Amino acid sequence: MTRSYAILGTGALGGFYGACLAKAGFDVHFLMRSDTNQARKHGLRVDSKSHGSFAIKPAQICDNPADLPDCDVALLCVKTTSNDQLDAILPQAVRPSTTCVVLQNGLGVEEQVARYVDPRRILGGLCFLCSNRVGPAHIHHLDYSDIRMGRYTSDGSAAGIDPVMEDVARDFHDAGITVNLAEDLVEARWQKLIWNVPYNGLCVVLRTTTDRIMSHPGTRAMAESLMREVADAAHAATGRTITEGFIREMLDRTDRMAPYRPSMLVDLDERRPLEVEAIFEAPLEAARRAGVATPRLELLTAQVGLIARTLVDGP
Amino acid sequence: MTRSYAILGTGALGGFYGACLAKAGFDVHFLMRSDTNQARKHGLRVDSKSHGSFAIKPAQICDNPADLPDCDVALLCVKTTSNDQLDAILPQAVRPSTTCVVLQNGLGVEEQVARYVDPRRILGGLCFLCSNRVGPAHIHHLDYSDIRMGRYTSDGSAAGIDPVMEDVARDFHDAGITVNLAEDLVEARWQKLIWNVPYNGLCVVLRTTTDRIMSHPGTRAMAESLMREVADAAHAATGRTITEGFIREMLDRTDRMAPYRPSMLVDLDERRPLEVEAIFEAPLEAARRAGVATPRLELLTAQVGLIARTLVDGP
Repeated sequence: MTRSYAILGTGALGGFYGACLAKAGFDVHFLMRSDTNQARKHGLRVDSKSHGSFAIKPAQICDNPADLPDCDVALLCVKTTSNDQLDAILPQAVRPSTTCVVLQNGLGVEEQVARYVDPRRILGGLCFLCSNRVGPAHIHHLDYSDIRMGRYTSDGSAAGIDPVMEDVARDFHDAGITVNLAEDLVEARWQKLIWNVPYNGLCVVLRTTTDRIMSHPGTRAMAESLMREVADAAHAATGRTITEGFIREMLDRTDRMAPYRPSMLVDLDERRPLEVEAIFEAPLEAARRAGVATPRLELLTAQVGLIARTLVDGP
Repeated sequence: MTRSYAILGTGALGGFYGACLAKAGFDVHFLMRSDTNQARKHGLRVDSKSHGSFAIKPAQICDNPADLPDCDVALLCVKTTSNDQLDAILPQAVRPSTTCVVLQNGLGVEEQVARYVDPRRILGGLCFLCSNRVGPAHIHHLDYSDIRMGRYTSDGSAAGIDPVMEDVARDFHDAGITVNLAEDLVEARWQKLIWNVPYNGLCVVLRTTTDRIMSHPGTRAMAESLMREVADAAHAATGRTITEGFIREMLDRTDRMAPYRPSMLVDLDERRPLEVEAIFEAPLEAARRAGVATPRLELLTAQVGLIARTLVDGP
């Protein structure tokens, strides 16, 4: 049996993964908010160095979640800044037998999905992907594409790996996408925050790239201190231990990277809403509830929050 | 006897105070680096709502410290970012009987002067002044002009008030400038940092004005937290207690202020060097030596440091 996929949010991320699955022969249905006319007429176009240039044509497009057919898997691909729309999407798009994969940043996102979807059918995914929407129904994929995926549990326990996860991972593999399965989704989400908090935060506040953060001794030390605060919060809030070796590896990896604009800086430059809640406020709140002090995270969150508000209100 | 004054650094600050003293009839000698031809030909011009528009003409100008006559009082008016020039100025400009008043921002500035000047003849002054150089030998005075002044002591003890301080304060008073005498210069310097650290820092990093810091709950809370960290550092490093009432008063005063660009943000906008060492690094170093944790001050110092470096190196 070939599984069918619903792409909830056909932007730079959902459009890319969905197009790769459709190209590999899966039955893929795209939920789109804009670009529907272009996509119906000319299909959905992807230009990628690693995955080639191709168009899905005709693409199975709809702009109303109620028009989606029953699908085996629904990929939730809207940004967390649009999560006020989950209420309008999920109850109709995710049917009783559908597995919902939450491909979003940060913490607490599966909890929001669990208001509408049976928690036992929720997976979470962390995407390592650089892709942009460059025109109507036209996506430019720049680099990376892999996903780290784990099973959500209401009590935050590690659920291990099961056949449903393996099926989804195999489908993605057939579409040219590597999915690394995580035994423990909570640990995977905190591990990703170890990188995202310091580099998204400092690069947005200072409007600069990762290499400059790393080459100035003061900000380099602060990136490391922020990692430790996030690790302390993870431990206090969830019992997960993020090792010294993991922190070193994140620093070393960033040293080896070409000058990089983290996704939140790209959002800022494009004047898109910033994912402050999922990436900053949620871990800060977790730290507070656990009674652990994270003063640098607190200051950085306030700074990013003011910048996000400036984007909305104007300076 | 009418006291004579040497103005060491005839910029927006030294030019303003010196011109007011000269206008009041004191014998004032200006040490200038630039604008000397303009000042010799057309005098030194001040436009001020509160002090009037006037020119000191002829102004007694020199561009070599060795050419200054013996003066009773030397006002050190260069920014701390030019303190690498003290070596070229002070040994010649400050004679054995001269009182040197250090009109500079931050911590540790009198200590630098004490390498060249008998410590018993050093006073420190904190200026509450908004003035700009708007053209060659032409100063625009916008608002405020008062100075809080105290006596420097090598051991950091409170020296109280003495006749020399009272004489200088009276001269300034005759020139239309209020000088509040402080019994304890160290306390006065830390009290000024209570305001300067959060508002200079947050406004520079976020490129915004005080009113926006205060109207966003996150950054408002951080301004208050930064004040407490500076107060903790002051207590641990010097034994001075900055009261809860003082912190409240600084917050209330900032709430009542019109939208304000702190001096360091003006420096940034004008692409002038930032006084990172005197305002941020010196108090942070004092906290470190005293063994008190100031994590928010540490992060803010690193951020301001990167911005200062970007001004020098380019982005």
